[in-house]
Amino acid sequence: MGAASVQATLEAAVAAVAGERVAVIGAGRTDAGVHACGQVASLATTSQIPAGQIPAALNSHLPPDVRVVDARDAPDGFHARRDAIARTYRYVILNRPAPSALLRNRAYHVPDPLDVDAMRRALAPFIGPHDFAAYHGVGSDPRTTTCLVREAVWELERDRLALTITADRFLRHMVRMLVGTLLRVGRGRLDPAAPAVFLEDSDNRRTGPTAPAHGLYLVRVEYKESAG
Amino acid sequence: MGAASVQATLEAAVAAVAGERVAVIGAGRTDAGVHACGQVASLATTSQIPAGQIPAALNSHLPPDVRVVDARDAPDGFHARRDAIARTYRYVILNRPAPSALLRNRAYHVPDPLDVDAMRRALAPFIGPHDFAAYHGVGSDPRTTTCLVREAVWELERDRLALTITADRFLRHMVRMLVGTLLRVGRGRLDPAAPAVFLEDSDNRRTGPTAPAHGLYLVRVEYKESAG
Repeated sequence: MGAASVQATLEAAVAAVAGERVAVIGAGRTDAGVHACGQVASLATTSQIPAGQIPAALNSHLPPDVRVVDARDAPDGFHARRDAIARTYRYVILNRPAPSALLRNRAYHVPDPLDVDAMRRALAPFIGPHDFAAYHGVGSDPRTTTCLVREAVWELERDRLALTITADRFLRHMVRMLVGTLLRVGRGRLDPAAPAVFLEDSDNRRTGPTAPAHGLYLVRVEYKESAG
Repeated sequence: MGAASVQATLEAAVAAVAGERVAVIGAGRTDAGVHACGQVASLATTSQIPAGQIPAALNSHLPPDVRVVDARDAPDGFHARRDAIARTYRYVILNRPAPSALLRNRAYHVPDPLDVDAMRRALAPFIGPHDFAAYHGVGSDPRTTTCLVREAVWELERDRLALTITADRFLRHMVRMLVGTLLRVGRGRLDPAAPAVFLEDSDNRRTGPTAPAHGLYLVRVEYKESAG
């Protein structure tokens, strides 16, 4: 499900449980086909249902591909998206000749051999604050295109290659365009220095292609103290 | 898909690729709902298509939930089921209060707290040769109910608890009945010594319940030398 339909689905479940229609605000973008195992959402309700009973109550009104794992009371005015200080996404690649039935729609199947060392060298300069305008898909108009990347690492386990990246914020399609660009490095078609050079101007025609949505997972959202 | 429908699906793909209808013999049972990531199957064909081209050719005729990962020439008379000397199954449990959208149909959701140490103590005596008649579901009539368990271990990683078990052979529903019985131990409803005591007679009314199929994976099949 895309973010919009997950949001609408959650709002309908909240209306059924709490008896009032309120907005549900998700912390991190999950476009259609993107998975989330660590999404955080906030809502304001007058309902007196204890937080501990909310997950089971909402889940009984949700389709099986949307599940509420935990619910907590938050300070007045808490806003899951604005108050988040970091998001972590993971992009999973199945790197072997044959596709997988079990990982269908769960990982991007790349049959070509990849030079993972080159992909790691290309990734390293992305740590720190950068203007990611060149890794910004069309269709959104953010306040700023500067993001502070705290961590970014490629991990290889047998035929599973995964990028885990943490930043204060992400632009639309940013992780998928970064993965698509780094895969060109992995295939030996792009110099490992090039992806970071592309940051220097806002031309997003040199980056990409945008890797498919179904390899991407929103895995964690962080807040100051334990607000989330 | 169940074993019968996977087999029929594979046979139809082989007929389309090789131009002849031949039997496809799977090494390990996978009942309906059970997953396989290491199944081995054999077939005899007069086709001259090189083995290296077989996976892609078959996959182009298979539905996306069935994928051929590798194909090799085998000695005359090779029989994937009879020649296998060991199978490894894994049973995956999600042990936390809330269900998971991503693990739906991929792991058995057990919300109750489990005493994993007790489950490990209950599992240990199963190593070695035993008559598993008490852990044998109805509906099959094997030559013998004795199985040699080479390895069996519970591994816990955060909220994921998995039993990995290797034996020369498995009876119908054997892993699922073992898991169902050990879960009674984990919940404190059965003494850790009891599951092994149940082996002493063939009464399968004291064992179980049969854990659901969707937590079970056939992960590996082994052959003498490198026949498979």
